[in-house]
Amino acid sequence: MAGAQMVQNFIAGGAAVNQLCKAIDADLRVYEMALDRPTADFTAEPAMSEADCALAMAYGMMAVEPGVDVIALGEMGIGNTAAAAALCAGLFGGVAVDWVGPGTGVAGAALARKIAVVDEALRRHRHAASDPFDVLRRLGGRELAAIAGAVIAARRARVPVVLDGYACTAAAAVLFAADPRAIDHCIVAHRSAEPGHARLLARIGKTPLLDLGMRLGEASGATLALAILKSALACHTGMATFAEAGVSGKS
Amino acid sequence: MAGAQMVQNFIAGGAAVNQLCKAIDADLRVYEMALDRPTADFTAEPAMSEADCALAMAYGMMAVEPGVDVIALGEMGIGNTAAAAALCAGLFGGVAVDWVGPGTGVAGAALARKIAVVDEALRRHRHAASDPFDVLRRLGGRELAAIAGAVIAARRARVPVVLDGYACTAAAAVLFAADPRAIDHCIVAHRSAEPGHARLLARIGKTPLLDLGMRLGEASGATLALAILKSALACHTGMATFAEAGVSGKS
Repeated sequence: MAGAQMVQNFIAGGAAVNQLCKAIDADLRVYEMALDRPTADFTAEPAMSEADCALAMAYGMMAVEPGVDVIALGEMGIGNTAAAAALCAGLFGGVAVDWVGPGTGVAGAALARKIAVVDEALRRHRHAASDPFDVLRRLGGRELAAIAGAVIAARRARVPVVLDGYACTAAAAVLFAADPRAIDHCIVAHRSAEPGHARLLARIGKTPLLDLGMRLGEASGATLALAILKSALACHTGMATFAEAGVSGKS
Repeated sequence: MAGAQMVQNFIAGGAAVNQLCKAIDADLRVYEMALDRPTADFTAEPAMSEADCALAMAYGMMAVEPGVDVIALGEMGIGNTAAAAALCAGLFGGVAVDWVGPGTGVAGAALARKIAVVDEALRRHRHAASDPFDVLRRLGGRELAAIAGAVIAARRARVPVVLDGYACTAAAAVLFAADPRAIDHCIVAHRSAEPGHARLLARIGKTPLLDLGMRLGEASGATLALAILKSALACHTGMATFAEAGVSGKS
């Protein structure tokens, strides 16, 4: 179970996001999404029941703790770029090949299999899904539902959100599909190397802050983007005006 | 004299770069390049004598102090995007309109005048210039010569360099024109909103780290890019290996 080991690595402080949080002076919270209880095979049935999806969303809502200035969201999930691709196709149309990419490095026959699985899931659920949240329940995963929940809670709390890469943006795109204004408080941290991300960003009209070919997930891009936000804020609050500096007009 | 006032603002801590240095924990050094003794009118004669240009380069070399980990270079100069444009055209060909942009916001008749002045300087010096350093002396300014000197000194000291926007990259491009390997130790921080910068980056084969529409100069982009470098270094030095983390192979 590589997923549980990777969660343990976050807790032990050995992951990329731990180093980034230290470098940028951000606090890390790790939410473990019932790794011992996998979601259902979405080629056969909905990944989650309505209750399970709602529970995951509510769990994500708790991430917006009182006093938070800004929240950088991300995820770690084995195989969840497939769920993200299915979610994007379910929300915005297209077939699997439009949205599926190599993820952590899938290629050749394994990539063809990934595409076939996503197309199978789309055939099963696309016409049955009643709204974007039902698409999420059928094609998503608990971590994606939790991210959607956190984005909603942040909006209600007037906390700006920084979204990480493909899977994280796909989760927020569920809300966009329901109401485009629902993610106006979200900044996309970076353009992931996963090719579906650029397509998704175009669809939701978001320009990422960074474009560094990152593809790690685990909120690494979102955390790095916090450094840009902190710097912008430092300029906004600390700079002298022309009058204060005694500068006599632009040249 | 807006230039002297702006230097005073750097020293007083009211400029953007001061806030960025604080946010990123970088040290700022301000080198004042004989503001009371302007370079000559480059439409009439070389901007600098050989001795003056060499002195400015030597002054810039001193910026690479012992023990420096990395150096982010930038400049503040009134009207120096015109010098940068002339320098680029002198080094790489083309006419003024290929390299001149709005700078701090020049438009309309003033922009046409800026283009005409640069073309006039190019007519006077282009065929007389004997090598890239002679182009620098004729069309550049002291701050651009100082930056070229700092890039050379950093290379000799094995210190990586982060270059700021258009004027700073144009200064480093003098060395590229002399020998393309001379700026292999330089990273370009960001793509400036000044349109000549993208053309220059293509010419010297550098991909910027950031593309945020910045155009302030004063090493603001280079300082911001230090945050990315520090984060990358934190990941490189602090992350656990798969073996240390007990992760059983990629999925």
